[in-house]
Amino acid sequence: MDILWSEQDIEGWLEGSNSKGERGLVPASYVEMIKNDTATSYNNSTSGDAYQGSRYSNVPSGGSDASYKPNNQVENFPPPPPALSNLSAPAQQHTYQASQGSDDDWDDDWDDSSTVADEPGGVSGRYRDFDANGPSTYSISTSSRGGNAQQAKSSATVSRNLNRFSTFVKSGGEAFVLGEASGFVKDGDKICVTMGQYGPEWQENPYPFSCTIDDPTKQTKFKGMKSYIAYKLTPTHTQNQVSRRYKHFDWLYARLVEKFPVISVPHIPEKQATGRFEEDFISKRRKGLIWWMNHMTSHPVLSKCDVFQHFLSCTDEKAWKQGKRKAEKDEMVGANFFLTISTLAAPLDLQEVESKADGFKVFTKKMDDSVLHVNATLNEFARKQIAGFKKEYQKVGLSFKSLSQAFELDQQTYSVGLNQAIAYTGEAYEAVGDYFAEQPKLDVDPVMDLLALYQGHLANYPDIIHVQKGALTKVKDSQKHVEEGKMEGSQAEGVRDRCNIISFATMAEIQHFHHIRVRDFKAQMQHYLREQIGFFQKITSKLEDALHMYDKA
Amino acid sequence: MDILWSEQDIEGWLEGSNSKGERGLVPASYVEMIKNDTATSYNNSTSGDAYQGSRYSNVPSGGSDASYKPNNQVENFPPPPPALSNLSAPAQQHTYQASQGSDDDWDDDWDDSSTVADEPGGVSGRYRDFDANGPSTYSISTSSRGGNAQQAKSSATVSRNLNRFSTFVKSGGEAFVLGEASGFVKDGDKICVTMGQYGPEWQENPYPFSCTIDDPTKQTKFKGMKSYIAYKLTPTHTQNQVSRRYKHFDWLYARLVEKFPVISVPHIPEKQATGRFEEDFISKRRKGLIWWMNHMTSHPVLSKCDVFQHFLSCTDEKAWKQGKRKAEKDEMVGANFFLTISTLAAPLDLQEVESKADGFKVFTKKMDDSVLHVNATLNEFARKQIAGFKKEYQKVGLSFKSLSQAFELDQQTYSVGLNQAIAYTGEAYEAVGDYFAEQPKLDVDPVMDLLALYQGHLANYPDIIHVQKGALTKVKDSQKHVEEGKMEGSQAEGVRDRCNIISFATMAEIQHFHHIRVRDFKAQMQHYLREQIGFFQKITSKLEDALHMYDKA
Repeated sequence: MDILWSEQDIEGWLEGSNSKGERGLVPASYVEMIKNDTATSYNNSTSGDAYQGSRYSNVPSGGSDASYKPNNQVENFPPPPPALSNLSAPAQQHTYQASQGSDDDWDDDWDDSSTVADEPGGVSGRYRDFDANGPSTYSISTSSRGGNAQQAKSSATVSRNLNRFSTFVKSGGEAFVLGEASGFVKDGDKICVTMGQYGPEWQENPYPFSCTIDDPTKQTKFKGMKSYIAYKLTPTHTQNQVSRRYKHFDWLYARLVEKFPVISVPHIPEKQATGRFEEDFISKRRKGLIWWMNHMTSHPVLSKCDVFQHFLSCTDEKAWKQGKRKAEKDEMVGANFFLTISTLAAPLDLQEVESKADGFKVFTKKMDDSVLHVNATLNEFARKQIAGFKKEYQKVGLSFKSLSQAFELDQQTYSVGLNQAIAYTGEAYEAVGDYFAEQPKLDVDPVMDLLALYQGHLANYPDIIHVQKGALTKVKDSQKHVEEGKMEGSQAEGVRDRCNIISFATMAEIQHFHHIRVRDFKAQMQHYLREQIGFFQKITSKLEDALHMYDKA
Repeated sequence: MDILWSEQDIEGWLEGSNSKGERGLVPASYVEMIKNDTATSYNNSTSGDAYQGSRYSNVPSGGSDASYKPNNQVENFPPPPPALSNLSAPAQQHTYQASQGSDDDWDDDWDDSSTVADEPGGVSGRYRDFDANGPSTYSISTSSRGGNAQQAKSSATVSRNLNRFSTFVKSGGEAFVLGEASGFVKDGDKICVTMGQYGPEWQENPYPFSCTIDDPTKQTKFKGMKSYIAYKLTPTHTQNQVSRRYKHFDWLYARLVEKFPVISVPHIPEKQATGRFEEDFISKRRKGLIWWMNHMTSHPVLSKCDVFQHFLSCTDEKAWKQGKRKAEKDEMVGANFFLTISTLAAPLDLQEVESKADGFKVFTKKMDDSVLHVNATLNEFARKQIAGFKKEYQKVGLSFKSLSQAFELDQQTYSVGLNQAIAYTGEAYEAVGDYFAEQPKLDVDPVMDLLALYQGHLANYPDIIHVQKGALTKVKDSQKHVEEGKMEGSQAEGVRDRCNIISFATMAEIQHFHHIRVRDFKAQMQHYLREQIGFFQKITSKLEDALHMYDKA
């Protein structure tokens, strides 16, 4: 019988599901687990393992570079062998298809039954030794968008890209530029790009809001055999609390990635198989979700979109399922998304757009490298503080205590004060050691959370730039075709107009990125420095206490 | 020809001295140096290598314990084989005899021509990895006192110790207790022990003074072929500056050790063969000499003694040589020193004396262990700050700088302030790294200098306690002899009286030790903490500067 087993042994029972999707519990001792390797269990898992990158997995340092590669090739070249694009679409596509399954499996615990191997514990469980490749809380699924995007159906005058794995094709960018997208755009779906001080900008959400994520609570079903964590979300604009699980975030994320080809959807925190009910993990995931939510509500387009609003506000189970089905059947995704974009501004200079896109490509590459660098450095710095620094200060403390113990053998009145003061100094240094160990979670962790979120964005941009460049190439191709008399001028004009739409969107997205980047890094650097200052002041104050002890000595 | 060669080749010339002490320069190429090993060159050296212990050499952790060993043996047992007492007297005696040579060799450069191997540079040149055995700036020559002490000449009724290497014998303690010491005590030489609040005390020096040691200056002689460092000493009570070299301190130290059997003469800083003209070494030696001087002028007996006063005040070369000869011929050394001690107080309870001596023995053992512990810990702490801590903070600084460099690719007006602020933050962390590296010489080093000085004292005490215990044993022996009718009661009374004198002196010295210990450790711990507080405040202030940069961002 073909049974998929959950790898989690729940008090001697294993949960399995057969090929019909029926689930049941079987004594663990009846079952022999046969695994080939971790990779295999990844693939066998029914849970959508969209986030194979983990905080501590090696994010390829040349990630964005590698993703840029197809861009350097002529569009019509055959696809590179899959091995070259290990983050290539098919695997991800499977994931998102799984996420679009029937309502019946909606309650399946993707996260709970995930077979992702747990990482062996490091010094602190969080900070590890690692090489140049940094850790990332957020997985990076570069080419994940548009798995279900409307495939091109008609032939066109402008040559079609034969690479079916090209992001430009998958995203729907090509179909849109070639004029193949069609759909009815409701007023509510319209997205406006305006011309701002620094170039194209998404029109601000006129009703900005934020959303808190609180009270992660363990809940159970199946008579307590299955547990999960539910978070309480309270958006400021509705003030209605909704309860959401990780898999709801995961489902929403898949919808957004599919819908918005040139918008950098913030990655949700990584999946994790074991230790999911440990306080540290829950707290870390909550922080990741808060960051994610912050970027969602900060984004003029994402914050307004129906599926996100449904996610934020729906409390009724029946309405939820209806909304879920509706979102999964949304036609305005991929190529059709571009139909919803309008701009009143004059067309952009496409050469300038190309130059800006190239500049941004260089920027993201350099930022990706330095984020990796900062991440690795802070990770190591935290590890050192938790282990080495703490140890050194505690050793100093212990040695002072040993001195005071020796001195206590002399109990003449004029010695007693000194003995106590030295003993206190020893304790103070032991406390300072603890301060060092406790500090990283106050300052390093938030920075690393931010960096991880940005690593996700930086991994998104190669695809976005790829779509932009693909559109620009189509414009050039069509111009050539017109010159060669193979295409009508009006048709080429349509290509140019549609490329202009994509360009507005891409430029607006880049501008948005820079704005939130400056906002976020300013705030985080300030937070980091304030915490560090508070930390050193706390040490100073402890040592001042110790010094005062000698006044009485 | 039997020639002793200085091992220092001075621009192609070697200095040698023949068996008559005549010195001259010979081209180095004419001479073949034959060395067996380092130990041999130590022994062949004409320079008194009294201080084979170096800051980084391994001071045996059980140093004081080992020295106590003879004490646990019955006095009349034969001496332990020399190998058991590697700090045993004969080698040291040689040293001090050499130091008592004619005026002709007074100008020999013991220190300059020392063949002590230079230590290979460590991380900082000062802080090294080392095992449980700590480093010591001051050498420890446990059994060095009384090499020239008046030997017992007459037979006595109380059994004589057959162990000629016993400190009790060498120090003159035995001879004094047996009533064999005799000499004329001048009024100026009289030393009074009073009964204070905590027991016997040395009578305070009615004219307390201190002495500065400044301006270490390189001077030359032999037409520039020989160089040495001269220090300017200015005692507060004379206000006359004198110029002294390390070898003068060394000579004085030998006189004091010989003269005062139960006084812990502070050790002078270690000898060093090479690098003697390097700024760091000169500064370190000067600090060591200042500490030494502080303990000399703080000591009621040492501060007043003739040879020290001569050392501090003599400026005339002829008078210096006269004083030198006089000191070397001083008869009131060793056994006779005890003749100079007087006390008006009632005799001590010798059982209580024994118990206090035992208690102090335990105290010094425990203090020695913990001083070693603190020393090792602070040494490692300093090393970590100079290497690891600095590196970590600088790596954090560099990573922030790399981030700012990436961000600088985006030069939009709203980015510039942040870019600058992050760059500044990077520099601030690099500066913090430097602060860590610079700090140990401000706080750890002074503590280690103090510990080294105390390690010297702690190495002295086993011998002092040994003399005390030897005297007590003689009292017991003589009582037994009286009971057995082998000794006159009056003779036994004499032994007891003289033991009482030794006991007063030992108890006063122990009391003095506790007083300066409390004074010194209080002051040093306060200094250490103040420096540490200043250090963390400096870091705080630097980070506050960085934080303010974001106000403009």
